[in-house]
Amino acid sequence: MGKEKVSFNLKTPKGTKDWFGSDGLLRDRIFSTITEVFKRHGATSLDTPVFELRDILAGKYGEDSKLIYDLQDQGGELCSLRYDLTVPFARWLAMNPNVRNIKRYHIAKVYRRDQPAMSKGRMREFYQCDIDFAGANYDPMVPDAEILRIATEVFEELGWKGCYTIKVNHRKILDGLFEVCGVPKEKIRTISSAVDKLDKMPWVDVRREMVDEKGLDGVVADKIETYVVRKGGRELVESLQSDEALLANPSAKTGLEEMALLMDYLEAFDILDKISFDMSLARGLDYYTGVIYEVVTEGSAPAAAPSAGEEAQKIQKKSKGKTKNDDDDDRSNDPSIGVGSIAAGGRYDELVGMFSSRAQIPCVGISFGVDRIFSITKARMGENNRTNKLCDVDVYVMAFGGKGFTGLLKERMEVARRLWDAGLKVEFSYKRKPKPIQQFEAAEANAVPFAVILGEDELAAGQVRVKEMGLDKGHPEKDGVLVNLSTLAEDVKERLERKKTAAAAAAAASSIDADEGGIAKKIEDLDVKEE
Amino acid sequence: MGKEKVSFNLKTPKGTKDWFGSDGLLRDRIFSTITEVFKRHGATSLDTPVFELRDILAGKYGEDSKLIYDLQDQGGELCSLRYDLTVPFARWLAMNPNVRNIKRYHIAKVYRRDQPAMSKGRMREFYQCDIDFAGANYDPMVPDAEILRIATEVFEELGWKGCYTIKVNHRKILDGLFEVCGVPKEKIRTISSAVDKLDKMPWVDVRREMVDEKGLDGVVADKIETYVVRKGGRELVESLQSDEALLANPSAKTGLEEMALLMDYLEAFDILDKISFDMSLARGLDYYTGVIYEVVTEGSAPAAAPSAGEEAQKIQKKSKGKTKNDDDDDRSNDPSIGVGSIAAGGRYDELVGMFSSRAQIPCVGISFGVDRIFSITKARMGENNRTNKLCDVDVYVMAFGGKGFTGLLKERMEVARRLWDAGLKVEFSYKRKPKPIQQFEAAEANAVPFAVILGEDELAAGQVRVKEMGLDKGHPEKDGVLVNLSTLAEDVKERLERKKTAAAAAAAASSIDADEGGIAKKIEDLDVKEE
Repeated sequence: MGKEKVSFNLKTPKGTKDWFGSDGLLRDRIFSTITEVFKRHGATSLDTPVFELRDILAGKYGEDSKLIYDLQDQGGELCSLRYDLTVPFARWLAMNPNVRNIKRYHIAKVYRRDQPAMSKGRMREFYQCDIDFAGANYDPMVPDAEILRIATEVFEELGWKGCYTIKVNHRKILDGLFEVCGVPKEKIRTISSAVDKLDKMPWVDVRREMVDEKGLDGVVADKIETYVVRKGGRELVESLQSDEALLANPSAKTGLEEMALLMDYLEAFDILDKISFDMSLARGLDYYTGVIYEVVTEGSAPAAAPSAGEEAQKIQKKSKGKTKNDDDDDRSNDPSIGVGSIAAGGRYDELVGMFSSRAQIPCVGISFGVDRIFSITKARMGENNRTNKLCDVDVYVMAFGGKGFTGLLKERMEVARRLWDAGLKVEFSYKRKPKPIQQFEAAEANAVPFAVILGEDELAAGQVRVKEMGLDKGHPEKDGVLVNLSTLAEDVKERLERKKTAAAAAAAASSIDADEGGIAKKIEDLDVKEE
Repeated sequence: MGKEKVSFNLKTPKGTKDWFGSDGLLRDRIFSTITEVFKRHGATSLDTPVFELRDILAGKYGEDSKLIYDLQDQGGELCSLRYDLTVPFARWLAMNPNVRNIKRYHIAKVYRRDQPAMSKGRMREFYQCDIDFAGANYDPMVPDAEILRIATEVFEELGWKGCYTIKVNHRKILDGLFEVCGVPKEKIRTISSAVDKLDKMPWVDVRREMVDEKGLDGVVADKIETYVVRKGGRELVESLQSDEALLANPSAKTGLEEMALLMDYLEAFDILDKISFDMSLARGLDYYTGVIYEVVTEGSAPAAAPSAGEEAQKIQKKSKGKTKNDDDDDRSNDPSIGVGSIAAGGRYDELVGMFSSRAQIPCVGISFGVDRIFSITKARMGENNRTNKLCDVDVYVMAFGGKGFTGLLKERMEVARRLWDAGLKVEFSYKRKPKPIQQFEAAEANAVPFAVILGEDELAAGQVRVKEMGLDKGHPEKDGVLVNLSTLAEDVKERLERKKTAAAAAAAASSIDADEGGIAKKIEDLDVKEE
């Protein structure tokens, strides 16, 4: 290790960042909310290596394979950084043929050598939060419905009530209606991807792409229009089920039956009101074989040209005809997860079979775009609610004294130890004789709620002073209260509990206001910033 | 995405593994225990990218730099996978000159292209758990003492009471005594690393290395022996402080003063009994500048030739003269963390300055070898306590019925939804008409404690059956009890609470036995397996 000072390029690699402080705290809170929901549904965590054998990733991502990070050939196996969490899961399933039914979740970073757009949250290293149910031991749409239920629980518990919609469609309905309308078989995928743009451009432009660029018969395009502009709930399924042309197509028929079943199950799960059956939703990936879905919020579908003073409208209406970011969240094939929709997924029954012909395991899952969820949540919190605090400390142990004051360092340590023993989060100054102002500033910087103050006379009487930080001047306990050392930990715990209860009550009261447009307002602010 | 089945090499890359199921659950529990302790001391999480610019890592790991994984040059910056968490932290500190005092923790994977030894827990991708206190605003040994307190809290809360010792030494004492004994300045580092082997080989061999291989005067070596074989507590510090030759050396004098101070602070933190001042502890890394330490357990220092029937001895005595694995846990320089000692660290005041001359920030920290801690903990749990369960599910919702039974799928979904709404962890069969045996087997496979059983007649009366799994045949509640749907969630929560309380009481009772040698026995078993 040389002693000379070298001049370094002091930065993180392009498209990567350090997570620290309040951003890291907020992100961890999002992770733990999501994990808690996953566990509530019996899911188990799977942790795979950050790199895979290069062959495992080859041929899974089409032309986006160029975005894969390769490790240098240093002798031995050729490896690449994982590009998503779905392919490693499929590899694991193929390697573990005894596992026939599994609910697995995985929260980890993935890597894509794309052009980063930090302000939009598009990074080269970013987190994905995936949950997938694999296994053949199920009847149609039961696990699929539970995945959608999981999506609602995640967003409800993140506090997004009323601020999100789950768009749902079915690959078999889509394929069937293209056949019924007369789309030639070889054009179905490309016409499907044109339809998927309906949330970004008006029908006339989509039609032009189909007819002028992709050579579709105009009559066929017009037939397609009658279907794909439709969105709704159960009544739309029923209306389509009385469409004889559609019903004559086996794929569409199966798809509609499954969709009706799904609606039934979503009703049992009490989430029907969060669902929009949207016939224009197509999703980019080839590997979906059944139901597909995408969670959108106002924040993920900003207006093309937001008109000031535009009246608040229901999300479902709003999303129609609006422009959304090009960077659509697509769990594997699209390098820009987390910028458009905030979660997306679907059923993919044939991916595992690509690794092993012995292991054909049907799967259904969803991927949450944490970076986008993080940005929106942070914007929603507003400037006022943001803190610079780095951690949640309960107590700062201080000492004051007059002339000849020793600093009471060992005594502060002993008191800290008592409180640690009781499970409390405690800090104290590392100086032998810290000034009062230094100790108060350190406590305030982290918004520590309570100070325990040591004084020589009080200590001699076996007592210390417990002071709640930030009390008004006139408050009777402004200068703290004397507490016996023997009951100190208990006393502080009770005070913390009381303070938390009061804060929760205050938050509940203020969230009533926030629901009245406050959150939507914040999300709109975010969109403006991102343009 | 081609449709052809390709033959894949279905494996993870060499030296890496998937973490799943009960192993993953246990590891997560270790992580959360450690994180909780870290947070109790006001630490904030820092998450850095998995790869760094190649220049950042260059020149930090001496000849072990050959073990660094490089990313392929695909255009743009040259990057490498991180080798430890300390250098990224130092890079972050140098990049954030406004941060002058910080307690940060980081739990993440690091990468070393070493020869893997899976059975010993030596992997190419493995976890490190680091906590480091950086900043100049402290008086000597105060943060150092808190780091040692953190080490004890971690192992106490992992249930290792009485099963570990923290060996402590000070670089300044070591350097001073080498000077006093007459070691030429340029030989101090190499003689120091010979001394560090005293826990692996007897003095005669270490002396031979010093004299024959390293050309040290035999008289000097004999003087060294009088010091480095000594270990003890406070009394050893005091005895050395009356050694006039040592006191005349400024480095040794400072080191001893700091050591005495450390002992004072460790007493205030009530952990003096876990500490062994061990003059042979030298640690490999060049960058340590002050106190150094290493946590050992019987499991991390196996006997060179374990004699059957050897009486149990106090750890401190045991570790003397025993062979420990060559794979010493060294936080940055040794590629095999987590095999020898179970945690290690020290003070390094000059590392950050290698990145920026403006940022000379003193640091002290410790790294926990989670893989080793995992292996020992798993062995301690014993075969009997191990389960194959993949997740902690509270309730399995079932339905039974006679002829014409519909399966009550939607009803099961509704009941599951009620319980999820109450925050409970719930599963049910994804089949429309599951057989009773299938449902029971699914619940038993995950050791789910309670079943909620739906029957058509009972449902009509607004009731379901709550059944505790695994009750004996004669138990009065063997067949479950009828509960109103409206109070179901509450009822199940109460039962879960009661069951947990009972289990905790039973565990407390049995742990008294375990402490009486049970744990040590298990650790010895592990050593045998690892030989």
